[in-house]
Amino acid sequence: MPNDLNAPLESAADVLRAASDVTLLAHVNPDADALGSALALGLVLHRLGKSVRVSFGEPETVPETLLGLDVAGLLVPASAVPAAPEVLVALDTGSVARLGPLADRVSTAGAVVVLDHHVSNPGYGTVNVIDPTAEATALVVLRLLDVLGVELDEPVARCVYAGLVTDTRSFRHASAATHEVAARLLAAGVDAEAVARPLMDSHPFGYLGMLAKVLGRAELIADAAGGRGFVHAVVTLDDAAGLRPEEVESVVDLVRTTAEAEVAAVLKELRPSSWSVSLRAVSAVDVREVAQLLGGGGHRLAAGYTAEGDAADVLARLRVALETVAG
Amino acid sequence: MPNDLNAPLESAADVLRAASDVTLLAHVNPDADALGSALALGLVLHRLGKSVRVSFGEPETVPETLLGLDVAGLLVPASAVPAAPEVLVALDTGSVARLGPLADRVSTAGAVVVLDHHVSNPGYGTVNVIDPTAEATALVVLRLLDVLGVELDEPVARCVYAGLVTDTRSFRHASAATHEVAARLLAAGVDAEAVARPLMDSHPFGYLGMLAKVLGRAELIADAAGGRGFVHAVVTLDDAAGLRPEEVESVVDLVRTTAEAEVAAVLKELRPSSWSVSLRAVSAVDVREVAQLLGGGGHRLAAGYTAEGDAADVLARLRVALETVAG
Repeated sequence: MPNDLNAPLESAADVLRAASDVTLLAHVNPDADALGSALALGLVLHRLGKSVRVSFGEPETVPETLLGLDVAGLLVPASAVPAAPEVLVALDTGSVARLGPLADRVSTAGAVVVLDHHVSNPGYGTVNVIDPTAEATALVVLRLLDVLGVELDEPVARCVYAGLVTDTRSFRHASAATHEVAARLLAAGVDAEAVARPLMDSHPFGYLGMLAKVLGRAELIADAAGGRGFVHAVVTLDDAAGLRPEEVESVVDLVRTTAEAEVAAVLKELRPSSWSVSLRAVSAVDVREVAQLLGGGGHRLAAGYTAEGDAADVLARLRVALETVAG
Repeated sequence: MPNDLNAPLESAADVLRAASDVTLLAHVNPDADALGSALALGLVLHRLGKSVRVSFGEPETVPETLLGLDVAGLLVPASAVPAAPEVLVALDTGSVARLGPLADRVSTAGAVVVLDHHVSNPGYGTVNVIDPTAEATALVVLRLLDVLGVELDEPVARCVYAGLVTDTRSFRHASAATHEVAARLLAAGVDAEAVARPLMDSHPFGYLGMLAKVLGRAELIADAAGGRGFVHAVVTLDDAAGLRPEEVESVVDLVRTTAEAEVAAVLKELRPSSWSVSLRAVSAVDVREVAQLLGGGGHRLAAGYTAEGDAADVLARLRVALETVAG
């Protein structure tokens, strides 16, 4: 982690030490990194005697796979978040809008601490600790815990590990320093397989049927992405019935393994004629540029946008944008 | 790694230091741990001025995904392995039989060093370094390299990482010490994503079609495995056409994610009416016992066997064995 984050880390620690009541918020549709980060820090602050709650804007229900991280019962529904929090901590949330229905708390809170790793984060807090080199926000939180001087025990380490293992796709994207962090978390007693399996390797049987339908319709188009292939698949609402959002999201991780393809796209139906599109590239094509042409954003090798129309139209517009960017 | 391996490690180092010609053998159908381990040690011995070759019994062709590990051109076909090697090193090879057509070299070699992590290894060498607690044979090799006192540079570290990342299923099964090893390998300059992608995350487009067909036929049978579910899928020769053995093998990693199932089985057609069956359990059922009833073996949570007959017969016999073991 860059040294120039030392000053904001000290400021964040000062704000939290002085607080008596802390509200920690994850982004809407929180994943293991957002909720794990919030629960790790929340648990530590709770033990320091502060009044603590963890929440997020929508949906109201906590993903079942993440309930096990809340050992101290800190999670509350959005309706229980104070109108004007004393101190607000926003975790893994790249923009105010990503707080959803709780976005207004950024302006009503006495202080706002932003802990994040999204390069696009504009720094909307009174204190901003944003490290785009961190593979997970959980790593930023761990650094803050070290500044706070708290001991890392199993329940806290488990929450950090949950964020780390998922955001690195099980250490596919992990530096030497990140493996050293993993070693430290496991040494604190984390049962890595027990934490990771429900988050990444456990799906209802219907998941296999969904994959069968979706992968059976996948198409590879040669020479459609910078001289290499373009592979795409479509997940309808019907395909996705009964599955969690991250299970549907994981389809792109299979589709992108296509060796002939430089770019992979998965269209997920949000509502009839409304789609969320995930784009992935291997190395050569900048899919953020493609997504930006279509009103979205992201990173060079992973980006996304939303689109209206039928799937064939959405794909046709995507191919035009791909042609524009990748020649 | 257990301290009681210090003595055999020193003995193995002594044998290798004294050798002028070393033959390193992986098991038949070598994976990244077997070949990565052999190439890591082979490269170091080659630099120490010894005459070195790396080989395996069958098939004659090196998996394309592993060719990049052979930076010094040490791989030779089985026909180039001397009839009576001066020193033979068998890597990741749990039994003499797993050397296939080269198994006879164990009796003709001047000395045999066995480096392995299979608990079932009987220790068929003159020196045996077998650590069943190691997640990969590559970890045993790394320990030997440390005893040999060689510096870990990128080409060697890359071979070790290839074994480690694949045998741990991308660090799903990894201790704190193993993450520390990963940190050390990355610090030596290994490009983790570049090494791991072709080994684990790159498949021909036909892989998606294979999954669609195979997963579309998967079946879940409630209460058929110790009161929980039993899920199975069948991969025919037709489904598997054009795919690598490890790509077909990876099907079980998807099938086993079925949350309702305690036991997962995948039948892979070897020849018409001949099947290789992979079994996986979550925690409660000992699938090694199931496999042993059917003539196979393995570990408590991962085992296998071969069977003759049509798929329905093979499944029927499997269900009887499962009933016997799991009640």
